[in-house]
This record gives sequence, structure tokens and C-alpha cells, in this order.
Amino acid sequence: MAFSPLVDELVESLRCLPGVGQKTAQRMAFHLLERGRGGGERLATALQGAMSGVRRCNSCQNFADTEICNLCADEKRRTGTLCVVESPSDLLAIEQAGYYDGSYFVLMGHLSPIDGIGPQEIGIEQLLKRVRGEGVTELILATNPTVEGEATAHYIADRLEGQNVLITRLAHGIPVGGELGYVDGFTLSHAFRGRKPLAD
Amino acid sequence: MAFSPLVDELVESLRCLPGVGQKTAQRMAFHLLERGRGGGERLATALQGAMSGVRRCNSCQNFADTEICNLCADEKRRTGTLCVVESPSDLLAIEQAGYYDGSYFVLMGHLSPIDGIGPQEIGIEQLLKRVRGEGVTELILATNPTVEGEATAHYIADRLEGQNVLITRLAHGIPVGGELGYVDGFTLSHAFRGRKPLAD
Ligand SMILES: [Zn+2]
Ligand SMILES: [Zn+2]
Repeated sequence: MAFSPLVDELVESLRCLPGVGQKTAQRMAFHLLERGRGGGERLATALQGAMSGVRRCNSCQNFADTEICNLCADEKRRTGTLCVVESPSDLLAIEQAGYYDGSYFVLMGHLSPIDGIGPQEIGIEQLLKRVRGEGVTELILATNPTVEGEATAHYIADRLEGQNVLITRLAHGIPVGGELGYVDGFTLSHAFRGRKPLAD
Repeated sequence: MAFSPLVDELVESLRCLPGVGQKTAQRMAFHLLERGRGGGERLATALQGAMSGVRRCNSCQNFADTEICNLCADEKRRTGTLCVVESPSDLLAIEQAGYYDGSYFVLMGHLSPIDGIGPQEIGIEQLLKRVRGEGVTELILATNPTVEGEATAHYIADRLEGQNVLITRLAHGIPVGGELGYVDGFTLSHAFRGRKPLAD
């Protein structure tokens, strides 16, 4: 590059962000240097704080600043229901939907034997301990509807066989507002199997 | 948001980057926290260094760590030819094309009376001083082929009327209305070879 070491290093470092290639990193660096130095300084401080300060909640494995995250510490959340998700962004999507008011457990991934990711690596043992020890009455397995997500859900269900816990999975169907012609066959078949009387 | 103050602040700060909205900022923050803490720490350091350390070159106004930038300090560059660009990314695109071997002057914008941006604001007075004082024989006005870029080029040419300087403009080949920073190297090299006097 034709620039100074400081600019070069900034461009290189920006490429650690997902979806950011050389051109985009350059554009970001120039934007910050030309018109956004305040924002750049704020981002530097936020990165430093988050990279060193953010840990996993001891109870649900979600990102937290403290030993127990805000959600787990919130006594208004029904603790008898536990929703298992693969990632913090899945948890966030559910929170933004605004319907669910129970507790969570964030797996931070899914089972993937080929990559050496077993039950221990994603915290399934800790999840089972919580289910058995905290009187959980319903466990919603909201892992992704992918091969790995399904396998992870089934593994957890198998490990809880014989326990007095209702295990559920989110309903498959046509997305609200979606067009039928664009929905894939598997989803459509699920939607047919799960069809309900128009009464309710 | 459902997360910790540190995560929230990281997401908010990432939105200072151009083209990054709420969803993308979340995805970036989660990526860094889950799989890229080393990269995030490196980016924090790079941002801090660049935001406080990068200045303008005293000679060409380009970004530099030092009083005089690497390009201006390079004695292999022909100093009789001076290429005027609107931004560091334009300079970078020209450097990456690999054809031009003269000096530069980076305006950091274009004339825009409506926004209060006159000759003083983008360094035209300093440019004129350099042209008159350093024995520049050719001045290539490589401002963008937009209304503002053309107006800026003509303003500079007018101010140098009567001076013994060949004033040129890059050849057509650059898409009209396009931005210089996005033009490929071949087109840019052709444009340099086909540059013509500003006959107006
Ligand atoms: Zn928690
Ligand atoms: Zn310079």
C-alpha cells in the first residue's frame, strides 16, 4: 500500500470483521480517518472493553459482563421453562419477537463430531445439570432446523429420557407474510402436517 | 438489547463504520466475541494508533504518520508532474494501477460552495503555491468526472492561467458519474496514457 504503517495496519485489522474484504476495509479506514475519528476512538475503547470484559454467564452461557447475565438475574422470567438456542444471536431474535418469557440456555454451537465438538464442548452436561436440578418442566429445543441442529436436539432429548420434563421443538411452517410459491417443499410438508382448524 | 452493557456498547460503536447497520453490527460483535477476540484486540490497538497518530502530509495532504508522507519522500518519483486527486482512496486506486510515477496532491474533497467548502478548505491555495514554487511542468487534474469534480478542475485551471504549466485531465474511459476509487487498474492506466490538455 501507498500509505503509512498506521493506516496499513488499520486496514488489515478491519479485515477481522466478518464480510469485510480489502476494498471495504479501505473504505472503512478512510471514512474513519476523514470524517469519523470520534467514532473510531469510541470503537477502540468499546472493543478493548468487550474483548477483555465479556465472559459467559455461569448459568446460561450467554455473553455477560458479570457472573450471572441480566436475563438469568431477572426474577420476572419464568424459570420452569428453558429455551435452548445455538447462539446469542438466536437468543436475541427470540427476545426481539417479544413472545417468550422463560429462561434460556445458549449452547454456543451444535454437536459436530467431525470437528471434535461433543456434548462437553457446547455445555450440554451443564444444561442437563440445570434441567435436573432446577425443576425445569418444559425444555424448548430451539436449535436450528439444520442437520446438525436436529441432531443436537435429538441428543439432548435422548439424554433426558425418563426425566419428567416436557421436551418441545419450535413449529415448522410458512413464514408469516411469506409467499407460498417461495417456500421449500420440506417446509410446506411440515406446514401441511401441522395444519390447524381455522377456529382459533 | 438483551445483553450486557459492554456488548451493547460494542454493537453501537460498530455502527460508526460506513454501511454497517444494527443487524450487521450485531453479527460483527458476536463474531468477534465468539471466535475473534485476538482480531478484536488487534483492531482496538490499530484504531487507537491510527485515530491519534495519522495526520496530513505537509506537502501533499495525503494521510501520513510523519510530516512528509512516504510518497513525497520518495526521490524516485518524478517531481515535475503533479497529479491532483480528491481523496486518499483515489490516490490508492492510481497507485495500484501502477502506471503513474509522479507526485500527488490530495484535495480531501471538492469545491462545494453550498456546503461552505471553498478553495481554502480543500487546500487549493497550498496546491497553487506548490505548482508555482516547485517547477511543476504538468498538472494532471484527476478529480472525479462528476459535476463537482469538473468544477474543481476548472477552478484550478483558471487560477493557473498564464502560468507555464501543461494542465491535463484524465482521458475518457472512466465511466461518467463513476467514482475513481472503484475503477479497475487497466481502465485507469488507459486513462492516464490518454490524458489530454484541458482545452476547455
Ligand atoms: Zn444467563
Ligand atoms: Zn505527501
